[in-house]
Amino acid sequence: MKWIDGGVTAPQGFRAAGVYAGIHACSQLSEKESAAFIQNLRDCYGKQGHKNDLALLCADVPCTAAGIFTSNLVKGAPIAVCKEHLKNGWAQAVVANSANANTCNADGLQKAEAMAEAAAAALHIPEEDVLVASTGVIGQPLPLPPILAGIPRIAERLSADGSLEAATAIMTTDRVPKNMAVEFSLGGKTVRIGGISKGSGMIHPNMCTMLCFLTTDAAVSAAALDKALRLAAKDSFNMLSVDEDMSTNDTCLLLADGAAGNEELTSDSPDFPVFVTALRKLCIQLARAMAKDGEGAKHLLVCEVAGAVSDADARKVAKAIVCSSLVKAAIFGADANWGRVLCAVGYCGANVDVHKVDVDFSSPAGTIPVCRSGAGVPFDEDRAKEILLQDEITVMVTLHDGTATATAYGCDLTYDYVKINGDYRT
Amino acid sequence: MKWIDGGVTAPQGFRAAGVYAGIHACSQLSEKESAAFIQNLRDCYGKQGHKNDLALLCADVPCTAAGIFTSNLVKGAPIAVCKEHLKNGWAQAVVANSANANTCNADGLQKAEAMAEAAAAALHIPEEDVLVASTGVIGQPLPLPPILAGIPRIAERLSADGSLEAATAIMTTDRVPKNMAVEFSLGGKTVRIGGISKGSGMIHPNMCTMLCFLTTDAAVSAAALDKALRLAAKDSFNMLSVDEDMSTNDTCLLLADGAAGNEELTSDSPDFPVFVTALRKLCIQLARAMAKDGEGAKHLLVCEVAGAVSDADARKVAKAIVCSSLVKAAIFGADANWGRVLCAVGYCGANVDVHKVDVDFSSPAGTIPVCRSGAGVPFDEDRAKEILLQDEITVMVTLHDGTATATAYGCDLTYDYVKINGDYRT
Repeated sequence: MKWIDGGVTAPQGFRAAGVYAGIHACSQLSEKESAAFIQNLRDCYGKQGHKNDLALLCADVPCTAAGIFTSNLVKGAPIAVCKEHLKNGWAQAVVANSANANTCNADGLQKAEAMAEAAAAALHIPEEDVLVASTGVIGQPLPLPPILAGIPRIAERLSADGSLEAATAIMTTDRVPKNMAVEFSLGGKTVRIGGISKGSGMIHPNMCTMLCFLTTDAAVSAAALDKALRLAAKDSFNMLSVDEDMSTNDTCLLLADGAAGNEELTSDSPDFPVFVTALRKLCIQLARAMAKDGEGAKHLLVCEVAGAVSDADARKVAKAIVCSSLVKAAIFGADANWGRVLCAVGYCGANVDVHKVDVDFSSPAGTIPVCRSGAGVPFDEDRAKEILLQDEITVMVTLHDGTATATAYGCDLTYDYVKINGDYRT
Repeated sequence: MKWIDGGVTAPQGFRAAGVYAGIHACSQLSEKESAAFIQNLRDCYGKQGHKNDLALLCADVPCTAAGIFTSNLVKGAPIAVCKEHLKNGWAQAVVANSANANTCNADGLQKAEAMAEAAAAALHIPEEDVLVASTGVIGQPLPLPPILAGIPRIAERLSADGSLEAATAIMTTDRVPKNMAVEFSLGGKTVRIGGISKGSGMIHPNMCTMLCFLTTDAAVSAAALDKALRLAAKDSFNMLSVDEDMSTNDTCLLLADGAAGNEELTSDSPDFPVFVTALRKLCIQLARAMAKDGEGAKHLLVCEVAGAVSDADARKVAKAIVCSSLVKAAIFGADANWGRVLCAVGYCGANVDVHKVDVDFSSPAGTIPVCRSGAGVPFDEDRAKEILLQDEITVMVTLHDGTATATAYGCDLTYDYVKINGDYRT
């Protein structure tokens, strides 16, 4: 398996694009002003500094498709449309916007359906084959006119190197686009999987906690695609936390167009694990990139747990540590405060013997043991500081209770997180 | 019931004191330097600006006693001593220190026992009647010499108006001491309950999440005292969250000396609910004070939930809202971001119909409806800002599913929380 460029358009047969549709601007204008604004709108991306806010992704042919969605009881309206359109296991396009989550509005469902309808018309495909996603502020009415005006424009821009544009269009408080792809061999054929995602805030384990669109040119049955996506998400997006707030709009979609020409994979195929492994690696890299780009984050915080009694225990410990506000603040301050790590081990509900726990802090600058058998060991504070000043910090926790392992991804808690979220809406 | 001065020394027969023992200073000195430091130490409180770090509370006679402790698997060593000494349901004194939690150290238990032994010797009471508590940094060895030197000194200072001194001595990053008492009539006798507590960081629902020492001159059986304490904690300390990090040292103790002369209460006494009600009110006020004084907090955040199917559902919703980093950051920014409130309702695991939820923001400046039946309603942003700029903000959530209610207490998430916790240890 190798990493390649191209994101969601790396697999054969997919095109993507992103444009500036003016969604936020229109939400603050009257109907008449909004119409004038749209009338005058040019594609400002790269010219006037307006960030893309509308993305389109389309395959040349109908694809088998799978999706996983937030488990929050409050769900964005687009999720209902995706679930309905995924019932037959097929889809061909995804239309998505940032700047407004289309959630908690009385007319949200009609608007999400209108987005699917407009994309279907522009692409000349059935509405049932269009998936929809929205991200941004909750509870404000989605301004539909700029989206309906933008869709025909974006359809014209679709291209086989448009992935980055689309990745930029789904960003909210993200600082960098997440745009990745892998290539590997499957049954003698070269296949690719690509992905774009956005994360940043309102990110917490338990469902995919973000927007992520994945494409592959492998031929995979809809059932196998669903299974592969759940397996990959379990070790990647579901082990990711920025702030423990589970979003209402978390959506992860995977489309497979079969253009690579391999024999269609089912979950019983001998090559199915090969596909899952590649997909998992891609999803983990996307999760790491989202954690590192968490709102206000200065450090990627990884927690590797080993020696747990069970997989569930290992996951509980790893997640509790990357979720602890006190651990996250200590990582921000490059403070080797391992007591907070042990504290999180103690309250997470996992079956552990706290008197056997070892803790090490690790980074590209080295590794330092700070706790053995549940008690502190003397260590060089200057050396610890040197290790913790790196960009990517790993907290290694060994439980000595069993053989299960887990890894979770998060970020530090910074002044900027508070700043960003103290006045996001207005 | 009326509020009175005097804290834990308001009830008859209790004395308290607090001194500066130099615990933090000695932790950074060699054994020899530490001995010299202690030799020269005077009671610096009020003179040299050193905050008290050692507290002592003592009753004239043995008391019935109850305690509740953290459910964290990692427990401070003093908790083991308290549990052992409370087995017979009797105690007479509490010795407590700040600046070091005496947790996650190999020799912690011996040191906690040594504190009890020294206090017992100074007070001429059995060691088994002394309870111990420590709060502060985890995992650094507790310097025992300043504590052993301080105990005889503090025993001499014990006085019937020493509650505030003791309240100050248990503070860590707290900005204000919590020192309160109530007086009420019980079976024709005037009885009092007093309390001091410290909170600030590492505070999360599920056990008392802080240090709190309560005294009463009511005569109450040990079993009834235990039951009353659990009932009061359920609606106060267990509904309190500053940062979702459950401490290793949470301890809440209640001593009853019977000096008021009432007939001893059992949990079957007709007057038992009167005692519980007064204790609950005191504990709720202490919890509110701790929330308002949460690390870096600028606002007290109260969430009142009504119309839940069950008590447990109401509690889940109320806690999730005061725990949400995004809600807390919005309150810091005085931003009426009700979508984040609804989001927390959706992910908290409570049995709710999100399409029936109403949300109002309320403060001494007024009340503003922002969400009805799960969808936003138009509201005046300036009016909302005016309401949210007050010190105490109540988020009112009505579920329209049943009749159960709950109230939770928290605070906003601020730059100062990050600052305090980014470099607390060093």
